[in-house]
Amino acid sequence: MSARGIAILGSTGSIGCNSLRVIESLGAERFNVVALAAGRNVKVLADQIERHHPELVSVETEESAAQLKAELMARSVTAPRLVCGEGGLVEVATHELADCVISATVGAVGFVPTLRALEAGKRVALANKETLVMAGELMTRAAQKSGAELLPVDSEHNALHQCLRGEKRSEVRRIILTASGGPFRTRDKVTMSRATVAEAMKHPTWNMGAKITIDSATLMNKGLEVIEAHWLFGFAADEIGIVVHPESVVHSMIEMVDGSVIAQMGVTDMRHAIQYALTYPERFPSELPSLDLAKLSSLHFEAPDLERFPCIAPRVSGPGNGRHASGRHECGQRRGGARIHRRTDRAFRYPAGD
Amino acid sequence: MSARGIAILGSTGSIGCNSLRVIESLGAERFNVVALAAGRNVKVLADQIERHHPELVSVETEESAAQLKAELMARSVTAPRLVCGEGGLVEVATHELADCVISATVGAVGFVPTLRALEAGKRVALANKETLVMAGELMTRAAQKSGAELLPVDSEHNALHQCLRGEKRSEVRRIILTASGGPFRTRDKVTMSRATVAEAMKHPTWNMGAKITIDSATLMNKGLEVIEAHWLFGFAADEIGIVVHPESVVHSMIEMVDGSVIAQMGVTDMRHAIQYALTYPERFPSELPSLDLAKLSSLHFEAPDLERFPCIAPRVSGPGNGRHASGRHECGQRRGGARIHRRTDRAFRYPAGD
Repeated sequence: MSARGIAILGSTGSIGCNSLRVIESLGAERFNVVALAAGRNVKVLADQIERHHPELVSVETEESAAQLKAELMARSVTAPRLVCGEGGLVEVATHELADCVISATVGAVGFVPTLRALEAGKRVALANKETLVMAGELMTRAAQKSGAELLPVDSEHNALHQCLRGEKRSEVRRIILTASGGPFRTRDKVTMSRATVAEAMKHPTWNMGAKITIDSATLMNKGLEVIEAHWLFGFAADEIGIVVHPESVVHSMIEMVDGSVIAQMGVTDMRHAIQYALTYPERFPSELPSLDLAKLSSLHFEAPDLERFPCIAPRVSGPGNGRHASGRHECGQRRGGARIHRRTDRAFRYPAGD
Repeated sequence: MSARGIAILGSTGSIGCNSLRVIESLGAERFNVVALAAGRNVKVLADQIERHHPELVSVETEESAAQLKAELMARSVTAPRLVCGEGGLVEVATHELADCVISATVGAVGFVPTLRALEAGKRVALANKETLVMAGELMTRAAQKSGAELLPVDSEHNALHQCLRGEKRSEVRRIILTASGGPFRTRDKVTMSRATVAEAMKHPTWNMGAKITIDSATLMNKGLEVIEAHWLFGFAADEIGIVVHPESVVHSMIEMVDGSVIAQMGVTDMRHAIQYALTYPERFPSELPSLDLAKLSSLHFEAPDLERFPCIAPRVSGPGNGRHASGRHECGQRRGGARIHRRTDRAFRYPAGD
C-alpha cells in the first residue's frame, strides 16, 4: 500500500500538532503530509513545513504568507506553494493527493473547506464539531452522496464509533456521552458566577485548545456534542444520555436493547482518537502508554447538575425535544456560559496555537 | 423464523433455572424447550416440565426417574420421554429438534454430552467451564469440524465475546478478565486459612451455584477462566490479564494494539449472558433493568494479590507459560483453595439446585 496523503486544516492548533505527532509515529510509509492550513502562527508552521514538507500551505492572510516566506528563507527551507484565506483553506481541503483531511480549525471557518472535502469524497477526520452543529444535515448528506467517510476525532464520538462498529444500529437503545464535569463540577452555584477565565482554563483531565476548554467548563461543549452525536450516528435527543465521569477514562458508551453496555476507555490523550480516525478500519500499534485501571484505582460517575450547568438541560430533558439537534443551541450563550464566552471570544477565531 | 429448539443440561441449577426464565421472557415464538437434563431435584424438574413441556427429560438415576414419574402423575402432568445417566444426557444434548444446547452441569459430567452436541453441529451456550479446562482442544476442534458455534455464558467470557465482535483478532493486544475478588478480597492472610464454607459462600456481587461461588472465594475460578478464555478466543497466557474489580460491573475488557480498551458492562445478572448466547448474532430487548452508573457512583480496580490468592499466580506470571492453558491447573487444589475444596467436594457432582 502506498502512503496515504493527509491534509490538515488548523495544523498549528492542539489537534493539528497532535495529528502531526501521530503521523510521524506511524511512519512515512503509511502517511504523508501533503497540505497544511493554519492561521497566523508562522513560527510553528515553519517548523512543521521544515519537518513534513507539504506541497501546499495556506495561512489566514497575505501578510502572514509574507511573514512565513521570510521565516522559511531565513531558515533556508524551500517554501511550499503558498495560498491564503478561505480560498486557501479550500485548496488544502481538496488537494488532489489528500486521501484524508483532518478538520481541526475552530468555529465557523472550517465549515466551507470541510464541506468541500466531503464533496470531493475524501475521508474527513473531524475535530471541528461546530461544522456539524451548524450544518449537520448538509455535511452528512454531502458525505453520503460522494461516499466520503466522516470519522470523529472528539474523544467521546470517537469512542462511540469504536463501540458501534460491531453492532447493528437497530439494536442500540441509546448512546451515553461521558462528561468530565469540567473544573467547576463541585463548585457551588453562588461563586460560580464569579468564575474567572483562568479558573475555567484548568481542565481536570484533557489538555486541549482554549475554546473547547472554556466550553467544557460550562458544559456547553457537552451540549454541542449531543448535536454532533445526533448527526454522526443518527440518534434522537432522547436516545442520547450524559453521565458525568470526572476521570475521563471511559470516553463514552452505548447501551444495547438487551441492556448490555459497551464502553471505550483509554488514557486521556487526543492522539488515540486521531490515530483511530486516520487508520480506520485498521488499528496500528501506538506509542502511548496502556490504560492501567489498577493504578487509577477508582472511576466515578454522577448525574449532571442541570441547575448549575443549564447548557445541557434541554438536551437531557426527555423525549421529543429535537430543537437542539437542529442546531438551535441558544441556551449556552445566554445563561451560565455567557460571561466566559464573551470575555474570551476574540481568542477563538483560529486554533489555540495560532 | 420458526422457534429455535433448546436443550438444557443441568436445568435445575442456577444457570438452568435462569435460562428457562430468559426463554420464557423471550416468548414461545422465538424459543422452544425440547429437552431437559437434571440430577435428582425431582420437584423443580417437575415444575419445569409442567411449564415448558419438553419432549425428552433425563435424570441422574433410574430411581430419580421413577420419583419424577410419580411426581408428575400426582400432578396429573403427562410425562415426557424419560431417560437417565450419561446416555440420557447425551440424548438430551443431541436431540434432533435442539438447535442450541445450554451446557450448565457442573464439573466432568458435562464433558461427553457437550462434545456430542458440538459434534452434532449444535450451538452450545457453555456455562460449564470445566469442559474447556479439561479438553479445550478437543472441544474447539469438534466445533470447527462441524461448524458448531460455542458461545460462552460465563459473564467474563460473554463480555469478551461482545467486545471482540467488531474487532480483528490480530489487532487485539490482550484481553483483561475482571475478578470481583470474592468475599476474602480484603481479608488478611493469617485468618484466611481459617475461613469457613459459610463465609466463602457469601459472594459480594454474583448470585451463583455453590461450586463456582467457592471457586470465586479462592480465585481458583479466575484461574480456570484464564484457561477457558485461551480456548475460546485463542489468546496465550501472557495475553490474558486479570484485574480485581469488586463491583463486577465491568464484566471484562479487551485492549487493542492502539491502546484503546473496549469493555462490556452490565448489571450482575446471569440472564444477560444467557440471553446473549441464545440470541447471538441478534440482540433482543431484555426485561432486566438498565445499568445506572450515576447511581453506582464509583467503580474500583486493583491488582490481584498473588500471595493471598496463589490460584492465579502462574497465570499472570509472564510470557511463555503455557502450562495452565493446557489444562494442568494444579496449584489451586493444593494450596489456598485446598481446604474448602476438600470439605465441599461432595456437593459438586451436580448443579447446586439438584
